Amino acid sequence: MLTPATIDRVVTAALDEDAPWGDLTSAAFLPAEAVAGADLVGREDGVFSGGEVFAAAFRLTDPAIRVELLVEDGAFFRGSEPLARVSGPARAILTAERVALNFTQRMSGIATLTAQYVAETAHTRARIVDTRKTTPGLRAFERHAVVNGGGRNHRNSLSDAVMAKDNHLAVLLQRGLSVTEAIRAARDLVPHATRIEVEVDRVEQIEPVLAGGVDVIMLDNFSIDDLRAAVEQIAGRAVVEASGGVTLETVRAIAETGVDVISVGALTHSARALDLGLDVRISGG
Amino acid sequence: MLTPATIDRVVTAALDEDAPWGDLTSAAFLPAEAVAGADLVGREDGVFSGGEVFAAAFRLTDPAIRVELLVEDGAFFRGSEPLARVSGPARAILTAERVALNFTQRMSGIATLTAQYVAETAHTRARIVDTRKTTPGLRAFERHAVVNGGGRNHRNSLSDAVMAKDNHLAVLLQRGLSVTEAIRAARDLVPHATRIEVEVDRVEQIEPVLAGGVDVIMLDNFSIDDLRAAVEQIAGRAVVEASGGVTLETVRAIAETGVDVISVGALTHSARALDLGLDVRISGG
Amino acid sequence: MLTPATIDRVVTAALDEDAPWGDLTSAAFLPAEAVAGADLVGREDGVFSGGEVFAAAFRLTDPAIRVELLVEDGAFFRGSEPLARVSGPARAILTAERVALNFTQRMSGIATLTAQYVAETAHTRARIVDTRKTTPGLRAFERHAVVNGGGRNHRNSLSDAVMAKDNHLAVLLQRGLSVTEAIRAARDLVPHATRIEVEVDRVEQIEPVLAGGVDVIMLDNFSIDDLRAAVEQIAGRAVVEASGGVTLETVRAIAETGVDVISVGALTHSARALDLGLDVRISGG
Amino acid sequence: MLTPATIDRVVTAALDEDAPWGDLTSAAFLPAEAVAGADLVGREDGVFSGGEVFAAAFRLTDPAIRVELLVEDGAFFRGSEPLARVSGPARAILTAERVALNFTQRMSGIATLTAQYVAETAHTRARIVDTRKTTPGLRAFERHAVVNGGGRNHRNSLSDAVMAKDNHLAVLLQRGLSVTEAIRAARDLVPHATRIEVEVDRVEQIEPVLAGGVDVIMLDNFSIDDLRAAVEQIAGRAVVEASGGVTLETVRAIAETGVDVISVGALTHSARALDLGLDVRISGG
Amino acid sequence: MLTPATIDRVVTAALDEDAPWGDLTSAAFLPAEAVAGADLVGREDGVFSGGEVFAAAFRLTDPAIRVELLVEDGAFFRGSEPLARVSGPARAILTAERVALNFTQRMSGIATLTAQYVAETAHTRARIVDTRKTTPGLRAFERHAVVNGGGRNHRNSLSDAVMAKDNHLAVLLQRGLSVTEAIRAARDLVPHATRIEVEVDRVEQIEPVLAGGVDVIMLDNFSIDDLRAAVEQIAGRAVVEASGGVTLETVRAIAETGVDVISVGALTHSARALDLGLDVRISGG
Amino acid sequence: MLTPATIDRVVTAALDEDAPWGDLTSAAFLPAEAVAGADLVGREDGVFSGGEVFAAAFRLTDPAIRVELLVEDGAFFRGSEPLARVSGPARAILTAERVALNFTQRMSGIATLTAQYVAETAHTRARIVDTRKTTPGLRAFERHAVVNGGGRNHRNSLSDAVMAKDNHLAVLLQRGLSVTEAIRAARDLVPHATRIEVEVDRVEQIEPVLAGGVDVIMLDNFSIDDLRAAVEQIAGRAVVEASGGVTLETVRAIAETGVDVISVGALTHSARALDLGLDVRISGG
Repeated sequence: MLTPATIDRVVTAALDEDAPWGDLTSAAFLPAEAVAGADLVGREDGVFSGGEVFAAAFRLTDPAIRVELLVEDGAFFRGSEPLARVSGPARAILTAERVALNFTQRMSGIATLTAQYVAETAHTRARIVDTRKTTPGLRAFERHAVVNGGGRNHRNSLSDAVMAKDNHLAVLLQRGLSVTEAIRAARDLVPHATRIEVEVDRVEQIEPVLAGGVDVIMLDNFSIDDLRAAVEQIAGRAVVEASGGVTLETVRAIAETGVDVISVGALTHSARALDLGLDVRISGG
Repeated sequence: MLTPATIDRVVTAALDEDAPWGDLTSAAFLPAEAVAGADLVGREDGVFSGGEVFAAAFRLTDPAIRVELLVEDGAFFRGSEPLARVSGPARAILTAERVALNFTQRMSGIATLTAQYVAETAHTRARIVDTRKTTPGLRAFERHAVVNGGGRNHRNSLSDAVMAKDNHLAVLLQRGLSVTEAIRAARDLVPHATRIEVEVDRVEQIEPVLAGGVDVIMLDNFSIDDLRAAVEQIAGRAVVEASGGVTLETVRAIAETGVDVISVGALTHSARALDLGLDVRISGG
Repeated sequence: MLTPATIDRVVTAALDEDAPWGDLTSAAFLPAEAVAGADLVGREDGVFSGGEVFAAAFRLTDPAIRVELLVEDGAFFRGSEPLARVSGPARAILTAERVALNFTQRMSGIATLTAQYVAETAHTRARIVDTRKTTPGLRAFERHAVVNGGGRNHRNSLSDAVMAKDNHLAVLLQRGLSVTEAIRAARDLVPHATRIEVEVDRVEQIEPVLAGGVDVIMLDNFSIDDLRAAVEQIAGRAVVEASGGVTLETVRAIAETGVDVISVGALTHSARALDLGLDVRISGG
Repeated sequence: MLTPATIDRVVTAALDEDAPWGDLTSAAFLPAEAVAGADLVGREDGVFSGGEVFAAAFRLTDPAIRVELLVEDGAFFRGSEPLARVSGPARAILTAERVALNFTQRMSGIATLTAQYVAETAHTRARIVDTRKTTPGLRAFERHAVVNGGGRNHRNSLSDAVMAKDNHLAVLLQRGLSVTEAIRAARDLVPHATRIEVEVDRVEQIEPVLAGGVDVIMLDNFSIDDLRAAVEQIAGRAVVEASGGVTLETVRAIAETGVDVISVGALTHSARALDLGLDVRISGG
Repeated sequence: MLTPATIDRVVTAALDEDAPWGDLTSAAFLPAEAVAGADLVGREDGVFSGGEVFAAAFRLTDPAIRVELLVEDGAFFRGSEPLARVSGPARAILTAERVALNFTQRMSGIATLTAQYVAETAHTRARIVDTRKTTPGLRAFERHAVVNGGGRNHRNSLSDAVMAKDNHLAVLLQRGLSVTEAIRAARDLVPHATRIEVEVDRVEQIEPVLAGGVDVIMLDNFSIDDLRAAVEQIAGRAVVEASGGVTLETVRAIAETGVDVISVGALTHSARALDLGLDVRISGG
Repeated sequence: MLTPATIDRVVTAALDEDAPWGDLTSAAFLPAEAVAGADLVGREDGVFSGGEVFAAAFRLTDPAIRVELLVEDGAFFRGSEPLARVSGPARAILTAERVALNFTQRMSGIATLTAQYVAETAHTRARIVDTRKTTPGLRAFERHAVVNGGGRNHRNSLSDAVMAKDNHLAVLLQRGLSVTEAIRAARDLVPHATRIEVEVDRVEQIEPVLAGGVDVIMLDNFSIDDLRAAVEQIAGRAVVEASGGVTLETVRAIAETGVDVISVGALTHSARALDLGLDVRISGG
């Protein structure tokens, strides 16, 4: 989740990155007493995300700026609809504008892309979830945007769930353990309140993995037929997650195989920014 | 520029974000003494960016990891070519992998996209430059990637060049100043070592702006014909920057009008991550 | 887990807390060229914890100090046995001494207390685990010490496992849901890679909670008889954790009921510091 | 002293440690609009400490939470007496609860233990003071708790008073100086606004140390008889501090020898947490 | 420019530097309920600078303190005139006093010295500007003070304008390029929104430098006659900056040569603190 | 004292302040492989201070730079004498130059001014000491420079010695206590390892203050005759500090009155930077 403390910390750093010595242009052109009103508007349709972040960019630049959010995070909007209203000192509004938009455009881009994946799979039981392929420093923001788009979150980090891939199993197998034994050995080392997920590449690996005792099984790059067979075989003994090469073209068929979860790296690593703009009206103050 | 201090600070924060309490999976499955070798390889063609950042992710996780960079930032590579070689403690290599890739994929994605814009315009005098539409917290990384792709940087922030848009001029015009007078008044307030750029939307605004004394004039959303006419009219009296709606489809025609600079927000706000992977080989240690 | 980055960050802050302007006494009495050797020794028996932290306190005060750890974290030692050997500039060794001991005494105190709980229960299947009742800022250090004593860790924080108590269920019950329905509703909101634990106070709550689908069930302040009955009833359908009022006197009987996990707040909130000392020999340099 | 800035900094870090990605349980089980009231109550008798810290844990989690402190720091309370009253958003109250208690239980534990030492010595002139054997990062909190228990503080750190032990004197003695000469030499190097304390192990060392000119003399591990003789001998020429092996059983006799100050490491390094709890009542909002 | 975020960050650090464990004197002598009023007054004439910083020192020590600024930054004042009025808790006012004065005295000292340079040159076109010879960590404060004194700012840092000296040109000249060619080569590498300044030591260097294309030319340690000749020769083709050995005795003659800018390191590296004091009246509360 | 950790922290911040995005000039003009040698030389005579800080500025910019210090902190040097030798990558040396000089010039300026005060008083028993009138953020550096000049340090901060002025005594006097009683009451609240200093304005205040029990008595703005009388009257019962209006012209006479300590604010608040320069020789690499 995106906490207020995280918003303040990251937005403060972003503002400092964008104006370490202040905004030369506003100081040169605008009198200190000039005031402005501004509307955040969409230049295209989408799902809104980042309202509190948008507001924080202005508030942290100048507490005298007022921001009214007109739609909630997660709302679908048509282009040109006003999403938020800003008013206050003109210099500070122009200073904060770009940072506010940089966050909101990225977050709304992710929410909008997520909503497209969710729409494709809404008739199935499958959750669309994010991955750890997030922008360094912005994971909480991007995971929040995924939820706004109707998606769900995977583990936060390497510290709060176990996910074993073939590389993790390699040494134990080299030492003569079976997959089942290797997983059992690891289970004994993992905190009891932590879920274990194991990734498999082939159908034959499923039974040994289940026998080791896992909470979630990840089927990586399985064909649609194999996914369907795997779901049937697992039969509720573990949560089933499909992963690998998921696109807007393939996600519907994957969801229809009956998997519980589909993880999609593209939600965060390749969403394009949504086109939002700030329509500003300035007066002399 | 991307300084070593910035790399260390941002990568450290990213590692902490991804494993605040360490990597549960590696600790449970891999013996402490296991070692690994790994190759960074492309899954598609592209321009490499982020070698030092990639290396830092491993070094800051465990100084015992060695990273050898096989290509330089800015090099074009064919998919499957090894780009870097990593060796050392297996646990730490797997812990750092995702963060290392998250940076390098994003940076190489930006470099690759930039190189496409540059290729389209290589026969002209036009520079391709970035904008302030960067990812919060990662501006230095993304600007570095733009340079690796053959592009050039615009101003760092609001604090180191003046760029006036209609909103900045509004109050002075309301008070009865002409555009020329408004720019002159501001020039007097701007540090003498700072360039001034002014944005215009229409051809008629060019002469008054030039008369005010500017270093750079930005032609925003001009048609190709208007751009060509503007370049001719300006005739070297200021650097000419074209901006607005620039795509891979339109950039060649824009460049051929003779403008000096083309700024492209999409380089940083909408580049998709390039597909890179780490091929890991683990042994018992 | 206790990462090197965490050690460095926290020990640096502790050194700064203890000598923000340096060590007046060493500067006044000891010539800069004086050197010292020192042994870390136990003044009582115990389980050692904090070797890397001890070493960091000296290294971060002066890189010229060498520290050789003679026993590993988790080793049992008899009082007076040398645990580590320190040598280098005398001023810096005396400056770092107190901080090094403050960490190691606390960590070894926790490890030693944990080992006593573990010894009482070694003949059973029960894990001894810590809680969130840790010292603010030192959770990673204290959890590491628990592991050194043979204990195991519970969840890291509120962000990586769900643990519902009656207060969490209250509103859903007020709205007319049954316990089973309330848990199912929440399950749907929880990330799929996250375990859910629910606390119960009475035997009758067990079946409804299991029916809701939980990974772990916590039996809070149950009598020994009730614990035994509960284990039988649950019969492997969830991990069973006993909690509440666990002491060195009661832990054996609790473990013998067959529970999987016993959580003990006292491990971290009330362990006394173990008595360790530094025997220093100074020479003129 | 414990400044508001220190409280905010340390409590913020503790909250982040305990919920870096928010509180999954509250988010899953409690509606956003649920509200709660809660009383902080003692489960045993004691001396209260940490009211402002308790309040800060809630305020910094959500400014909408109101905390009313019902007793002042330093007040004695009977178990079950309400000590503070909390009201506001239910999610945030449950999120902050553990951190608030972790601080207050530790601080009240120290205050209560200190009060026991003070009660044993109230009929004498002796001050009970703390030492540098505090929890790394929490020294200001623990020293505040000592004062709440009726104790007094020793020096803050190595930077604000000089305390010389045999190790500090060793080199000067090796070089042929007498103890008196060694202390005089050091006095000349110490800032004039800084007190000098010297530790002695045997009665014979007292006169040479006094002759060197000290503000405080520490008698380390002296017998009761030797302490009494030493006080008589020193006769007000320096403040007299007793130290070493002080327990609740021995402190009265030590105090009755007439020493001015008794320093007790156990106040901070081995106090157990006092049992406090939060009684919460939640309603649907 | 001096942003509110910078003020808060730097003043907070200064307060912590001056009272890491609080103010022992106020705590020992003043009852908690004592209140005070205080006037900031000049002990000599000068130009005021640092009002917001002065207020922040008190506000950040205790939000209950009220500060009313009676003159604006940049105002000339006669000694003994009240400049600001402070009221609130006596302990906190005395705690903050020294830090508040340390900032304001330094800033007003710089503003006052700058005003003397500006007064000497007011009849000319020359701007008086600062340099990078500022106090580490306080550049924004000192540049603000220069502006308050009627001066102007040079570039913020090495990152926002190019200034080449002979050392920068050395390698290119060694490789056989002319000065003109060297500057052209560099121009091609510099962002288009960045000004380039080149320093020359002799009149003969001017034409080659101008031919390379520069925005600003710096004449270093030129005689008055050479300056006058250089201004005539440059004839508006670049901004002309004079530098080197500028004192209150020489600045008028330099300005009268017609240069555009005179940079003066002494403004920040050698201004003495202005004598300001706080007249405090305390009452029992 | 100036610790290595403080040097690294403050110099890192200063480098970031001076080149947040790197050094545009070096990057444009100097090839990456160019190397340089440089000598730090005096442009005037003085006392050197800041060698380790100077070295850190280069080391923290690029670890490949080597710095050899040719004189120790505290050494007197004649102008033009080489003080340190630097060699390594040319770009990084030019990038670090200004920050390195900003520290060293300021510190050497303070050391040189202090040495002048010390020289005036060397035939007396008086120590020359600094005050809390230091540059915010740089107190440790400036106190180090004072020591290099032969001066001594006063208390570090408000937290490590008590210094009472008339404002501190006001409330207790209003409540009817005598000065003697007021000081005794406060003494009881002050840690036993902390010195108490009280400031007096008139001779008549001396006896009551001594009767209250103080370690140091400060005579503020006393005439030479009054100082001499006061020293005689105090007769060793407390350390005697003279303060107020001390200049190079008056300090000798003050010292000859027999006071123990003379505190001089001007040492740190009004020292001008000493003129040091870096003579750089660059070659192509």
